[in-house]
Amino acid sequence: MRIVYVVPGPMNEEEVSRRGALLNQWAAQGVTVDIASVSEGPASIESMYEEYLSIPETAKLIYRLEQEGYDAAILGCAGDPGLDAYREITTSLTVVGPAAASFHTAALLGHRFSVLTVTDSTVPSSYELVQKAGLSGKLVSVKAVNIPVLELAKDRKATLDKLVEIGKMELANGADTLVLGCMSMGFLNVAEEMQEILGIPVINPARNALKVAEACVGAGYSHSKKAYMIPPKLATGKVKSLDELHVAKAKK
Amino acid sequence: MRIVYVVPGPMNEEEVSRRGALLNQWAAQGVTVDIASVSEGPASIESMYEEYLSIPETAKLIYRLEQEGYDAAILGCAGDPGLDAYREITTSLTVVGPAAASFHTAALLGHRFSVLTVTDSTVPSSYELVQKAGLSGKLVSVKAVNIPVLELAKDRKATLDKLVEIGKMELANGADTLVLGCMSMGFLNVAEEMQEILGIPVINPARNALKVAEACVGAGYSHSKKAYMIPPKLATGKVKSLDELHVAKAKK
Amino acid sequence: MRIVYVVPGPMNEEEVSRRGALLNQWAAQGVTVDIASVSEGPASIESMYEEYLSIPETAKLIYRLEQEGYDAAILGCAGDPGLDAYREITTSLTVVGPAAASFHTAALLGHRFSVLTVTDSTVPSSYELVQKAGLSGKLVSVKAVNIPVLELAKDRKATLDKLVEIGKMELANGADTLVLGCMSMGFLNVAEEMQEILGIPVINPARNALKVAEACVGAGYSHSKKAYMIPPKLATGKVKSLDELHVAKAKK
Amino acid sequence: MRIVYVVPGPMNEEEVSRRGALLNQWAAQGVTVDIASVSEGPASIESMYEEYLSIPETAKLIYRLEQEGYDAAILGCAGDPGLDAYREITTSLTVVGPAAASFHTAALLGHRFSVLTVTDSTVPSSYELVQKAGLSGKLVSVKAVNIPVLELAKDRKATLDKLVEIGKMELANGADTLVLGCMSMGFLNVAEEMQEILGIPVINPARNALKVAEACVGAGYSHSKKAYMIPPKLATGKVKSLDELHVAKAKK
Amino acid sequence: MRIVYVVPGPMNEEEVSRRGALLNQWAAQGVTVDIASVSEGPASIESMYEEYLSIPETAKLIYRLEQEGYDAAILGCAGDPGLDAYREITTSLTVVGPAAASFHTAALLGHRFSVLTVTDSTVPSSYELVQKAGLSGKLVSVKAVNIPVLELAKDRKATLDKLVEIGKMELANGADTLVLGCMSMGFLNVAEEMQEILGIPVINPARNALKVAEACVGAGYSHSKKAYMIPPKLATGKVKSLDELHVAKAKK
Amino acid sequence: MRIVYVVPGPMNEEEVSRRGALLNQWAAQGVTVDIASVSEGPASIESMYEEYLSIPETAKLIYRLEQEGYDAAILGCAGDPGLDAYREITTSLTVVGPAAASFHTAALLGHRFSVLTVTDSTVPSSYELVQKAGLSGKLVSVKAVNIPVLELAKDRKATLDKLVEIGKMELANGADTLVLGCMSMGFLNVAEEMQEILGIPVINPARNALKVAEACVGAGYSHSKKAYMIPPKLATGKVKSLDELHVAKAKK
Repeated sequence: MRIVYVVPGPMNEEEVSRRGALLNQWAAQGVTVDIASVSEGPASIESMYEEYLSIPETAKLIYRLEQEGYDAAILGCAGDPGLDAYREITTSLTVVGPAAASFHTAALLGHRFSVLTVTDSTVPSSYELVQKAGLSGKLVSVKAVNIPVLELAKDRKATLDKLVEIGKMELANGADTLVLGCMSMGFLNVAEEMQEILGIPVINPARNALKVAEACVGAGYSHSKKAYMIPPKLATGKVKSLDELHVAKAKK
Repeated sequence: MRIVYVVPGPMNEEEVSRRGALLNQWAAQGVTVDIASVSEGPASIESMYEEYLSIPETAKLIYRLEQEGYDAAILGCAGDPGLDAYREITTSLTVVGPAAASFHTAALLGHRFSVLTVTDSTVPSSYELVQKAGLSGKLVSVKAVNIPVLELAKDRKATLDKLVEIGKMELANGADTLVLGCMSMGFLNVAEEMQEILGIPVINPARNALKVAEACVGAGYSHSKKAYMIPPKLATGKVKSLDELHVAKAKK
Repeated sequence: MRIVYVVPGPMNEEEVSRRGALLNQWAAQGVTVDIASVSEGPASIESMYEEYLSIPETAKLIYRLEQEGYDAAILGCAGDPGLDAYREITTSLTVVGPAAASFHTAALLGHRFSVLTVTDSTVPSSYELVQKAGLSGKLVSVKAVNIPVLELAKDRKATLDKLVEIGKMELANGADTLVLGCMSMGFLNVAEEMQEILGIPVINPARNALKVAEACVGAGYSHSKKAYMIPPKLATGKVKSLDELHVAKAKK
Repeated sequence: MRIVYVVPGPMNEEEVSRRGALLNQWAAQGVTVDIASVSEGPASIESMYEEYLSIPETAKLIYRLEQEGYDAAILGCAGDPGLDAYREITTSLTVVGPAAASFHTAALLGHRFSVLTVTDSTVPSSYELVQKAGLSGKLVSVKAVNIPVLELAKDRKATLDKLVEIGKMELANGADTLVLGCMSMGFLNVAEEMQEILGIPVINPARNALKVAEACVGAGYSHSKKAYMIPPKLATGKVKSLDELHVAKAKK
Repeated sequence: MRIVYVVPGPMNEEEVSRRGALLNQWAAQGVTVDIASVSEGPASIESMYEEYLSIPETAKLIYRLEQEGYDAAILGCAGDPGLDAYREITTSLTVVGPAAASFHTAALLGHRFSVLTVTDSTVPSSYELVQKAGLSGKLVSVKAVNIPVLELAKDRKATLDKLVEIGKMELANGADTLVLGCMSMGFLNVAEEMQEILGIPVINPARNALKVAEACVGAGYSHSKKAYMIPPKLATGKVKSLDELHVAKAKK
Repeated sequence: MRIVYVVPGPMNEEEVSRRGALLNQWAAQGVTVDIASVSEGPASIESMYEEYLSIPETAKLIYRLEQEGYDAAILGCAGDPGLDAYREITTSLTVVGPAAASFHTAALLGHRFSVLTVTDSTVPSSYELVQKAGLSGKLVSVKAVNIPVLELAKDRKATLDKLVEIGKMELANGADTLVLGCMSMGFLNVAEEMQEILGIPVINPARNALKVAEACVGAGYSHSKKAYMIPPKLATGKVKSLDELHVAKAKK
């Protein structure tokens, strides 16, 4: 099984390698995980504006990765930006969104979960992601640690402490399972420590997305093409490729 | 009051003029409506892929239009693509999404509404738009006429007949109000005829969005900046402009 | 465009004039707002009992106002008492309920809103109004200032301070938009100051209802007669007028 | 135990007697049911306008009946018009609304129910009643027999046939329990026959309301005064009686 | 009318008699309540494991009690364990679950209720019971007193104090009605005192279940056999009795 | 990784072997699947009565299997009977319910799914399972093939044809993904053929549960012990083992 992890923004090679190594460490036997990233886009994603900014380049990359024969692609942002579009333009490549995957795993393991996201600016869109997954009835709340994405790893201990502190408050509010709402939190590899300290499941969106991708491919499932139809102009042959869907105004 | 209507894809000048004229005809006394369009993007929007394709250029345009002093901007696609992002990057310019505005107007005028959209490929995202607006409990269903956007105006009579036919079925299914789910349907100017024939309110997303924009500006309301926060890197001064949020991978 | 604002209880002429002046100040160009009030009914509305008490006289007044050719009527109580009945007995006159209109405007501008109502006795019915509008999923909570309606204006500063204090608590609880749940709060003209202080949209139910009425009339929409049917005895001609729907027990 | 059944409109003495006899036949041992009716109001209730028309007189009657020492009052219309107001103005008298009581009994006995109401004009308000009861998730649909209230008893056989016919369609649609949504249907005494024919529970709103009233009084429960607060002007002594809540405009 | 109260676990004869006496004291005129208990099962029920443990023996008992001609059976645990199964295997015997019955009575009397359960271990299943009843929209929260079932009666005063303390907090959180979520709390007979102290309805699940059973039998309703079908092997005659549904693996 | 599949009823050895072989064929590299079954219980499960009948023996078996060091147990019935109890009595053994797992996988792959269950008698409980999973908003409907469990395999072709026929109707009703609601359907191995014919994902509950178990164990997650607490008598040491929770009435 060949899975590709797609970083939807430019990332330095060192961090790309570190994440790739972790993914392969997490992978099941017989599974290879490659990592691919776009050459331009947002430096990190902390707003809907940056989510949308990431999509056009990432779409082209995912479209190409399907042609390279991967079994599944994991979207490298826990806001699931562009997930529905990536599913529209792929058929044999199963595209996994880490947010939706995390919420469903959390709902499978407990009764009510909370999401720990990065900044206040991503709280409303996190609520919408849970609603889109159909799981608002299982959600206690979304809380932000208010540490910018690019600073999460600067002081791992401080980040972990903050996550544990907010996690405890959410348990008191009724949550029995937690979801980390950011891939950079996932690659910080703190979920396991949090599980130890808090005594409940803590979903690492990166590792969980990999497991869900392995499960879907292993069971022979891909996203529904009735749910995510091929764009009509492509489906009917009006345009021949993805690129032709993007046009320029005719010069006068 | 100065309102700008923003076409999120390249459109020929003739059609731009025709739509601009209609908007000014619909406008209240003392309201001027300008029309602006991007120079590149999707030819029409019938998929989530095309929705996302339209956003980066449209965002830059709306950002600039705020600086030009407009009171409100109407997003020219009834899928409301990028609405939350446009609201993040503006403060004094009220951004109105025609989909959300139509659903709320329909909910104000009746008990249960149905949405008539263009193609089967936009049905699932229309359900999600209604859910995002919080109005799933007022929705009967979303139905597609299955006429491509760029062909809606080719045979106005056939389009109207199809809309009336599906509208009647939706009334039988329990709807008491209808929403046209596409701006090109709006500018076809068929809603009034449908109202006559069907005897219920039929929301024209273009005209309604203009009225909602006039109402918000007239009452002194803009979108909540607590709901749509300025992207953190901009808010904290880490970047100086919208353009700097888009970066390229450092060359090795 | 001719709009009439209908006070559903006896009100002194001075206050009627003051409100009428404010409405005309708020009105768009080319819009005239008249104000009409019933001669008997509740002194103010702080209970469902008083809501119902206001309806029979107000219904007769609205029925007559339609015959006088008004384009729209605004119901002068933010509990929307009798709204569905007034819509049943009118066709060309668009009847706007300020509560429903406020909730939909709030939902358009942000993600989650709270309602500030007058007294604890109106809290449960406010929750029901939001549910009736289909917007419970967008509601954070309803809170009462616990100042009787007729005393709201006695100490404007104290009322404003209380509204700001409760508003701040609601923002902390997750609201990003506020709705004033009482017309007398609306005519106190404090929403603008609250917007300044709190930095979020604060819906004034009186001013907003006027804008929504202008928008509906401007777009050519009235309430759905499939949703609000003419009372069957009237529709089938069993009775000739509204008055005949009220009968007395035959004397023995 | 003394229960009073309150007819919220003028009704001829013969029919009042017939209904009173049926109620006493249905009553449990040791329970006496009196019947009271207002002297003026709507002839029958098939619209929200007529619902509201019935409330002021009925409220005064119920207020007085509490003083006469009854244990419970059953509201004699399955639209539950004014129920919340009657509960605001009473404390020791338990007021039972037949609609809410029917929906809860249906939900207790099966998984999903449908409501059979009189005319299309009462369908939307029936959906709102179910929603107000919190039971929309248990509802299949509301269907009208489209026989006017005052004609239901003219051809009992035809009415029963129509009810059975629509009932069968609702069973096919997923309902496993039915609710008759009109008191005149209840006093037609067809529910038992429908149960025989259809093989599922059919809730008679009149008989069920009596049983629910007996149950509440028997268990020592009345409606919550925290949910249905005494109107503030009465509670604080600003007015001395219900009548004083109704005032007239001062003559100039 | 003959009703039987079924204790789903072994209980000492003294307590059985005490409960039987209370039930007959609560019963309406002409109603006899017998009490039956199984000879083996859980000592008390504070987990789903113990709920399930109680079902096989209790099912056999209820199956037999129907044959003895009882009109209704009340399930003696406020977790309603096995309720749907008991309804599948009975037809003329109306089976009442005290949890569902309590929630519906609470919803009838107020707007929003809270449930006071025994231990933290029963909180999640209590939320599920309310959801199963379709009433999550009416629920404020479920709170545990954290006194084991078998110790509730050891210090009645302490239990009452704890219930009142938590009840007050729930009223502050928005509840206007309370439900005791345990039959042993019901037979402690504290609901009446709580009503006095807190001024709102407090549902005693034992007494209320009896009243609901009387009401259903009195109105001629039993649970819907379309909702709770006879197990297919029994219905089609593949097995002749309940016992035959339980089989052993063939010895090799 | 060692996973055990638990059959909650007596099953002949041949079928046990066949299912065990299929499971190992489906398993990922490095995963061993054992199969265990109880010696007595229901022959098949087509009612809630049979669901409950299966639990006590299965609970004892699962309790023992945890002690044997398995990583995960898959419950062998797509009604998930006893799932919460099995999770209460285990900690290191992850217990996977195939129904919940199927619904979440379906929700991950599409927008709206339908469930194909065996008989009409299991339709209502299937709706409740979806609601318990929090996914009612993603469900189109539950439909029964009405072939008894023990006859599904008698004519594989007829069963497949029936599934395809109902599947097509559900697609027309709006579903874009299907779930087989019975383990015997899963082991019939028809999901793959259905996927081919219908062109959408069809979840095989057996194979999917295995993949979900592999994913959870692979990611280091077990069910939340805050959601599924150890029964208090066990947790506090009042009883020493599961068996002691089952007691007999003292002989007089």
